[in-house]
Formats: sequence, C-alpha cells, structure tokens
Amino acid sequence: MSRAHPSLASLAFLVGTWRGRGNGRYPTIEPFEYVEEAVFTPGPGKPFIAYRQRTRRAGAGEPLHSESGYIRPGGTDGTELVIAQPTGIVEVHTGEIDGDQVHFRSTEVRTSSTAVDVSRVERYIRVVGDTMRYRLWMAAVGQPLQVHLEAELTRV
Amino acid sequence: MSRAHPSLASLAFLVGTWRGRGNGRYPTIEPFEYVEEAVFTPGPGKPFIAYRQRTRRAGAGEPLHSESGYIRPGGTDGTELVIAQPTGIVEVHTGEIDGDQVHFRSTEVRTSSTAVDVSRVERYIRVVGDTMRYRLWMAAVGQPLQVHLEAELTRV
Repeated sequence: MSRAHPSLASLAFLVGTWRGRGNGRYPTIEPFEYVEEAVFTPGPGKPFIAYRQRTRRAGAGEPLHSESGYIRPGGTDGTELVIAQPTGIVEVHTGEIDGDQVHFRSTEVRTSSTAVDVSRVERYIRVVGDTMRYRLWMAAVGQPLQVHLEAELTRV
Repeated sequence: MSRAHPSLASLAFLVGTWRGRGNGRYPTIEPFEYVEEAVFTPGPGKPFIAYRQRTRRAGAGEPLHSESGYIRPGGTDGTELVIAQPTGIVEVHTGEIDGDQVHFRSTEVRTSSTAVDVSRVERYIRVVGDTMRYRLWMAAVGQPLQVHLEAELTRV
C-alpha cells in the first residue's frame, strides 16, 4: 500500500531524509547560513513524491524557512514540481531529469497579497551517493534571476 | 521553540489532527465517498499553520487525494492560504475569519502542463467543539463553480 508508483523510477534518487547545511544570499538581504532537513517520500500508491523541508539559522537555531510540495513524472521535460510556502508563495515547475540530477524551471510563481514579490525560480538538485547538492536561483523584488541558496545535504 | 506565533490566535480553532468521512461529486465524474485525515500544525515559531491532508476511498481504501500548504494571518480579509497538490495544482486564497469559521476564496489557481484545468476554488471550514465540517467548491474543466467536496471530521 505504501509502495512507490512504477513511473517514479527516474526520480527514485531523491527519496529519503536529508540533513545538512546551506547558505543564502541576495542583494537585498544579509548573507546567512542555515541547517536543513528535507524529506522526499514516495506516494503512497500514486505517481508522485511528497517533498517537505525546514531550515533553521546555523548556530542560533531559530526557524527560517519551510516549504512543501510534490514532484510528479510527466510534462514535456520529464517531471513537474508544485510547491507552497508559508511566506505566501506557490511555484509550478517543469523539470529535466538527467541521471541523478534534475533541473526545475518555474512556469508559474504566484503570491498572496501580503507576500514578497517573486517572479521566477529555478531549482537544481544533484545526488551523488548519499550526498545531495542543490542550488536555487530566484528573481524577486525587481532583481534579476540569480543564485539565492546553495546547500549540501547527507542522506540519514 | 514550538509555540505558535501570537498572531495565529484567530486561527487556533483549526489546530489539531482531524479524521472523518466525506463525499465528492462533480458533473464529469462518478460520486464517491472517502475517509480523510487532516492535520493543522502551528509554526514552529513563525506566524503560520502548516496544513496537510490525505484521503482514501471509503471501503476499498486506496489512496485518493492529498494536499499540503500553509495558512497565515494577513491580507485584507484576515487570512491567506497557499496549497500544493500532487495532481499538479497550486492555489492561493484570501480568507475571511468569522469566529470558528473561515471562508477561503481563490485569487490564483495555477496548474502544471499535464494537470486537469482548474480555474477557481472556494473552501469553507467550520469548527464546533471537536467537529470540523468543510465544503469545497470548484470550477474546473469548463464547469461553473459548484460544490465538489463535503466532509465531517472529528478532532482526535
């Protein structure tokens, strides 16, 4: 009942619980370092991977960001990603899978009336053995698309 | 560290784990009955409530739907809701809180390239004691906005 859907094989490299550290930067904020836990869980019984993560400030430990969503096979580029964030932001992506890496590019970023204005996001994830590295690019508050987050996580 | 943010007081009636039954209908599908678990969790330490739910077909038990997102205070009407669904759909809502009830109306519904076309959603939730009742209206696949789901859940 909890087995992954067969069509998820090409995304299986993501599945697991991952912990590690990352850093963030953007022209409008102070650079910061964070610790993260990300969880990718198949199904159950349906063709998707549920995704959720939380970060805390490195050292001090206060909660920083969290988000949750779903990755599913399909689309012209092999996979799709939808995400909701408590900051009032939702993202829809198409993704290209290449072995144990996937590059998501947003097709839609929408925000609630009181959220920060984000217009475009890209997310690149690469897994080598038990190490996941990701990079996130963001265009927001009038700034062009640029690297906002980089992290390295370990499968636990 | 896990205490709810103070500004969440007006949404505190949602917090908890809820289980129960519901039914679904739409002009384009066969009516169906389902069992559901919905979880509303504050924070941690940030002004939002994390929301996730899963449904299974009543009787047979196979997974039907799931979704996750966040409710946050703010906006002109008192609250905002963002949701992602593994069917490739994201929703952004504004909500009006009235005592222990809240009515969310979508301001944005966006779908991935392979998702069913949904254009508008409303979600009404009312809590009386340990009973939560909700109703969901949906405009999709060319049909006008109409009731799609109704359920009654109990706080466990």
